[in-house]
Amino acid sequence: MRELEDKIRQDGQVLDGNVLKVDNFLNHQIDPQLMYAIGAEFKRLFADQPITKILTVESSGIAPAVMAGLMLKVPVVFARKHKSLTLKNDLYTATVYSYTKKVSNEISISQKFLSADDRVLIIDDFLANGQAVEGLIDIIDAAHAQLEGVGIVIEKTFQKGRQLLDARGIRTESLARIKAFEDGQVVFVAASDD
Amino acid sequence: MRELEDKIRQDGQVLDGNVLKVDNFLNHQIDPQLMYAIGAEFKRLFADQPITKILTVESSGIAPAVMAGLMLKVPVVFARKHKSLTLKNDLYTATVYSYTKKVSNEISISQKFLSADDRVLIIDDFLANGQAVEGLIDIIDAAHAQLEGVGIVIEKTFQKGRQLLDARGIRTESLARIKAFEDGQVVFVAASDD
Repeated sequence: MRELEDKIRQDGQVLDGNVLKVDNFLNHQIDPQLMYAIGAEFKRLFADQPITKILTVESSGIAPAVMAGLMLKVPVVFARKHKSLTLKNDLYTATVYSYTKKVSNEISISQKFLSADDRVLIIDDFLANGQAVEGLIDIIDAAHAQLEGVGIVIEKTFQKGRQLLDARGIRTESLARIKAFEDGQVVFVAASDD
Repeated sequence: MRELEDKIRQDGQVLDGNVLKVDNFLNHQIDPQLMYAIGAEFKRLFADQPITKILTVESSGIAPAVMAGLMLKVPVVFARKHKSLTLKNDLYTATVYSYTKKVSNEISISQKFLSADDRVLIIDDFLANGQAVEGLIDIIDAAHAQLEGVGIVIEKTFQKGRQLLDARGIRTESLARIKAFEDGQVVFVAASDD
């Protein structure tokens, strides 16, 4: 998605340890117009799938997921990283390790929001090592729901997440695919690389 | 906002302790179409103000704030409740006590996303005791930015948040105003109550 790649080139910051900081349009400050365009692109990519629900993780997944839900006309459920007082029973849970933050979080969703009838699209901001997506897949499996695909805003193709999903035969669509960071610059996968 | 009141009547659950659970369209599962309508309503209410930025708190504030930002064509910044590894310096912070969860959280935003030139609209999902909004106002004050108004999805008029904001002369617009819970039912402020 050209508009997103341009934004990453213009506003993304490459930090040590292969971390791309996009906190001025996605992870902390959010560009709503760009999120709307991202939602439209996910609709274009997944319009042929019979999706009934979108699943994401708080907090950075919420904006792109809600725009995708707006376009695909389905509800969005965000997994919580911490249990709250009013949501303590009847949860599906999974443990997710964050390589960036070096901590494990439990993620959970209420069982009432995911059923065996659901055909689920996972949306998340980043795909790197694939831990968050794997956690969401565990939850979908626990609910006996069906995974229709995974939509990612920014993928780092050189980390293991994509391989894990491909090995499981999961349709994964990423709007920007980064193959390397060179001299602090982002190098995207070119059409000719595919 | 009629559509929102109807949704609260239909799907909201009144729990002990004056807690309204709206986790099937706002706090956990999100109804994107309703959020879009909420964004349009916030635009109608605040279109006359020279807003440059929307400020909210993760996670439940994000969906309505991003839709309001889409309509008003301004960026959204969400305050984080926990510091992250890639966001540790140069923060504005405030302490927020949650009566529902009975814990204090530190909320923070990067200083680079709020400046003295900003005219800020706060958007949040609930106004009850006003602690989250007060924390955001502390952050706006610390940045020497100007608060233009507060937009709330659901207000509980019988708790102290509204009074605190009125006493400070802050323009506060709530899309649904609850004056009481009676026998497990929600009673909204009627037009004749205003």
